[in-house]
Amino acid sequence: MAPTDHIAVCPGSYDPVTNGHVDVITRAAAMFDQVIVAVVNVSVRKTQPLFTGEERVRFIQNAIAHLPNVRVETFDVLIVDFARRVGARAIVKGLRAISDFEYELEMNQLNRHIAQDVESVYLMASAQFSFLSSSGIKEIATFGGDISTLVPGEVAESLRERLGRS
Amino acid sequence: MAPTDHIAVCPGSYDPVTNGHVDVITRAAAMFDQVIVAVVNVSVRKTQPLFTGEERVRFIQNAIAHLPNVRVETFDVLIVDFARRVGARAIVKGLRAISDFEYELEMNQLNRHIAQDVESVYLMASAQFSFLSSSGIKEIATFGGDISTLVPGEVAESLRERLGRS
Amino acid sequence: MAPTDHIAVCPGSYDPVTNGHVDVITRAAAMFDQVIVAVVNVSVRKTQPLFTGEERVRFIQNAIAHLPNVRVETFDVLIVDFARRVGARAIVKGLRAISDFEYELEMNQLNRHIAQDVESVYLMASAQFSFLSSSGIKEIATFGGDISTLVPGEVAESLRERLGRS
Amino acid sequence: MAPTDHIAVCPGSYDPVTNGHVDVITRAAAMFDQVIVAVVNVSVRKTQPLFTGEERVRFIQNAIAHLPNVRVETFDVLIVDFARRVGARAIVKGLRAISDFEYELEMNQLNRHIAQDVESVYLMASAQFSFLSSSGIKEIATFGGDISTLVPGEVAESLRERLGRS
Amino acid sequence: MAPTDHIAVCPGSYDPVTNGHVDVITRAAAMFDQVIVAVVNVSVRKTQPLFTGEERVRFIQNAIAHLPNVRVETFDVLIVDFARRVGARAIVKGLRAISDFEYELEMNQLNRHIAQDVESVYLMASAQFSFLSSSGIKEIATFGGDISTLVPGEVAESLRERLGRS
Amino acid sequence: MAPTDHIAVCPGSYDPVTNGHVDVITRAAAMFDQVIVAVVNVSVRKTQPLFTGEERVRFIQNAIAHLPNVRVETFDVLIVDFARRVGARAIVKGLRAISDFEYELEMNQLNRHIAQDVESVYLMASAQFSFLSSSGIKEIATFGGDISTLVPGEVAESLRERLGRS
Repeated sequence: MAPTDHIAVCPGSYDPVTNGHVDVITRAAAMFDQVIVAVVNVSVRKTQPLFTGEERVRFIQNAIAHLPNVRVETFDVLIVDFARRVGARAIVKGLRAISDFEYELEMNQLNRHIAQDVESVYLMASAQFSFLSSSGIKEIATFGGDISTLVPGEVAESLRERLGRS
Repeated sequence: MAPTDHIAVCPGSYDPVTNGHVDVITRAAAMFDQVIVAVVNVSVRKTQPLFTGEERVRFIQNAIAHLPNVRVETFDVLIVDFARRVGARAIVKGLRAISDFEYELEMNQLNRHIAQDVESVYLMASAQFSFLSSSGIKEIATFGGDISTLVPGEVAESLRERLGRS
Repeated sequence: MAPTDHIAVCPGSYDPVTNGHVDVITRAAAMFDQVIVAVVNVSVRKTQPLFTGEERVRFIQNAIAHLPNVRVETFDVLIVDFARRVGARAIVKGLRAISDFEYELEMNQLNRHIAQDVESVYLMASAQFSFLSSSGIKEIATFGGDISTLVPGEVAESLRERLGRS
Repeated sequence: MAPTDHIAVCPGSYDPVTNGHVDVITRAAAMFDQVIVAVVNVSVRKTQPLFTGEERVRFIQNAIAHLPNVRVETFDVLIVDFARRVGARAIVKGLRAISDFEYELEMNQLNRHIAQDVESVYLMASAQFSFLSSSGIKEIATFGGDISTLVPGEVAESLRERLGRS
Repeated sequence: MAPTDHIAVCPGSYDPVTNGHVDVITRAAAMFDQVIVAVVNVSVRKTQPLFTGEERVRFIQNAIAHLPNVRVETFDVLIVDFARRVGARAIVKGLRAISDFEYELEMNQLNRHIAQDVESVYLMASAQFSFLSSSGIKEIATFGGDISTLVPGEVAESLRERLGRS
Repeated sequence: MAPTDHIAVCPGSYDPVTNGHVDVITRAAAMFDQVIVAVVNVSVRKTQPLFTGEERVRFIQNAIAHLPNVRVETFDVLIVDFARRVGARAIVKGLRAISDFEYELEMNQLNRHIAQDVESVYLMASAQFSFLSSSGIKEIATFGGDISTLVPGEVAESLRERLGRS
C-alpha cells in the first residue's frame, strides 16, 4: 500500500451481507485504491444480530474474494475513529430510500461534528438492488421464500438453516 | 364463485382492525368480485400482537358482516403464496403516508422478484382516516383517550379492557 | 364487452410514452378485462407538450398493439368524468417516487371529493423503470444521449429528430 | 391593540384563498390576539397570479369577516421585514405535505439567518383540507369540476368565470 | 400568572434533554408568556428510558434555570388532557426531519380528533441542531464519542457514566 | 497530473455559486487529487440563467482561487460524457434535502443506464449550508434581503445590481 493510496471504509452490520452490499463494495473498490469493509461488532440498540461477527465477516470475505483491493475487519469504536485509524479518506455508504437518506444525513452531521477530517460519501443503490435489505431478506426467509438470487449462495443456505420452518 | 371472478386479498396484522382498514376493505369490495381479508398469524419481528389471531379475525368479521363478497382468513406463509393459493388477481393495500409508501415499495419489489404473477395495488387512505394506525390507537387507549370513533365499537371496548389503566 | 367487464383507465400526458408506461399498462391489462389508455389533450399548466395528441396516441398504440384488451383515447375533461363515461371501475396509475406519491395522494383526495364513485389504484413502478420519466428522457435526448432502451424504438427516433442537436 | 398583544402574520400568495387557508387563519386567530393575513404582491418567480392583489385581498376579507381580530394587508418586502414592521411575534404557516415541509424548512432557516428575532410557527393542515392547494383547485376549475365545497362561494364563482370553458 | 397569559406546553420524553431541545424551549419561551416543559412519565412502547423521570426533569431544570417563564412537570395522561389541565393555548414541538414531520402530522390529526380545542404548533429545528436526537447521542456516547457540545454538561457527564465502556 | 490521479467532476448550473457549493467543492478537493467544477452551459428546461456562463465560471474561479487542485470548465454534453472526456473517476454532488435526493437518485439511475463506467458520489451538505439554494438566494435578493454571508462577496454585489429594486 503506497502512502498516497486512497483508502475507503464501507461500514455496516451486514447481518447478513446481501447482493446489494456486494454491489456497493464492488463499486467502491473501482473508485478507491483500497477498500476496508468494516463490520460493526457491538449491538448498540440491544437487538441481537442473527449471525455472529465471525460469520458475518466470513460471508463477506467469500463474496468479495475476487476483489484484490478489498479486505474485511470488525470494529467496536466510533466509525470515524476506525476510519482515522486505518488512514481512510472516506467512509462509503449506499443509499436506497428516503429513510436511508434521513438516517445517513443525521449520522453524517453528527460524525462531522465529532470528526471534521473524516468525510462520508454515498453511492445510490443500483435499481435492481434498491429494494434489498438484510431485514427484508430475513423476513422472506422466515416464510420460506426463495432468496437465492438476493444474497450470496452461502448466505442463502445459512438463512434457510437458521430461519426456515420445517 | 365464477371461474372468471376477480379476487383480491387484503393482507395485514389488523391488531386491531381500525375504521381506516374497514374503509380500504369496503373500497376493495366495490372493485373486486371477491375480497379475502388475510390476517397474518406469524410474528416475524418478535413483537407479540395485542390480540390473538382469533380475536383479530372476529373483530374484522363483525365489522364487515354487511359486505357479502368479503371473507376473513389467517395465513402464515408468504403473502404471494397465499394470494396464488386462493386464486387472487391482486393484493390490495392502503397507503397513508410516505413511510407506508417506502415500506410498501420495498415489499412490492421484493414480492415481484419472488412471484412475478402476483400483482399488488394500492389505495390511498381516505382523508379522514389518513392519520389512523393500530399502534397510534393503542397508544391513545393506553392513556385513556376516547377511541370510539376510530375503531368498531367492539374493538374500542376490548382495547379499554386490555389497555386501560383503572 | 360484457356488462360485468372490469374496465380500467390509465391516464397521463404520455409526452412521450416510455417503457415504464408500457410496463404499467401491461400490468393493468393483466388485472382488468379492458384497459383504456387516456391521453390528456389539454395543457393545464400552460406548458406546450413536445408531441401532438395524435402523435402521443400513435406512439402508445404501436407500443401496445400486442395487447388485445387495451385501446387508446384522448380526453379533455376531468379524469373522473372520463372514467365514468367509459364505465371504468378504476383509474390505474404508476408510482415511482415520493414526489409521485405526494402528487397522486393530493389528486386522489381531490378526485374522491368530487366523485366518490370513481376509485383510483396505484401500481409500484418496476425496479428497472423506477428512474424513468418523460422529462428525464427528453433531457437525455437533448444532450444526444442514447435512449433506445428506455422508450419504444419509434419514440426514440422521433425524439432524436425533434430534440437532437446536429 | 394593547402593547403586550401577541400578533401573528399569515403570509401567502392566496391565489385564490381556499377553505384550507381559512382554516389555518381561524386557528391562528384562536391562538393569537391579532392576526394579519399578509398577501404577497410581488411575483418573484415570473409567474403571473390569476387574481390581482386587490381581488385576493377582498376574497380573504369576505371569508374572514366574522373574525374580529384578523385583518388583511399586502406586502412586497421580505416577510421577516413585514413581520417586524407590524410588531408580530410569529409568522404562522400551514403544513400539508412533505414538499410543504421541505420548502418551509429551507425558508425557515434562510429567514432565521436573516432575522433571528422573527420566529415562524407551523400548523398541520386539518385532515379534510390536507389535499387542498390553490393550484389544484385552479386545475379542477379549468376542467369544469365542482369546487364549491373547497373555496368560499365568491371564489368558486370567480374561478368559474375566469377559468371555465363554455 | 395573569388570566390572559399565553401558556405553551413542550412535551417529550427528554431521555435525555439535548441542546436542540433547549433551543426549542428557549424559542417557545420568547413567544409565549409561560412555558411548561412536560416530561412523559409512562413508557407506552415498552422501551425503558435510560434516565428516570426525576433525572430527566432535573437535567431540564438545570438547563433552563435562566429562563424565568419556564417550568418543568411530568405527565402520565394524554398530552391534550395535560394541556387542558394547565390552561395551555398550544402544544409546541420541534421538527427536524421528514420522519419527525410524518409522526407529528399523524399525532396532530389524532389529537385534534380527540380534543378540537387544543392546538399544536411546530418550530423548525435550528440548522446547527437539526441532526441532534437523544437516541443518536446515546449511540455516540456508547462508543465513547465526545458529546460535550451536544448536550448540557451535566447530561454529558451522566451519559459517560451510564453508557461509557471503560 | 499523474496518470493514476483521482479526478472528480462537480457539475451544476451554479447560477450563481453559493457558499454551500464552495463547501462541497472544498470537501471534494480534499478527497480527490484533481477536481473539475463543470458549469452546464445549456438551458435544457428553457429557463434562462440569471448570469452568463462566463460570469458563473468567473464567480467560481474567484471563490476557489485558494484551492490549487480545482479548475472550472463549462460543458454542453451529457455529464457522463464530459466525465469520461476528462478522465474522471467520479461525479461529486451535494445532497441537501429529500427533493435533492429524489432528483439525484433518478438522474443517477439514468446516468448509470447510459454509462456504467462513470460513478456518482454524494456528499451531505454541511448543517449550516443545508438551507442554501441559488434560487432561494435570488428570491431573498429580489426582496432586498442581506445575502452577504450566504454567497461570495462578489456574487452578493452582482445579485444586488442585477435583482435589487431601488
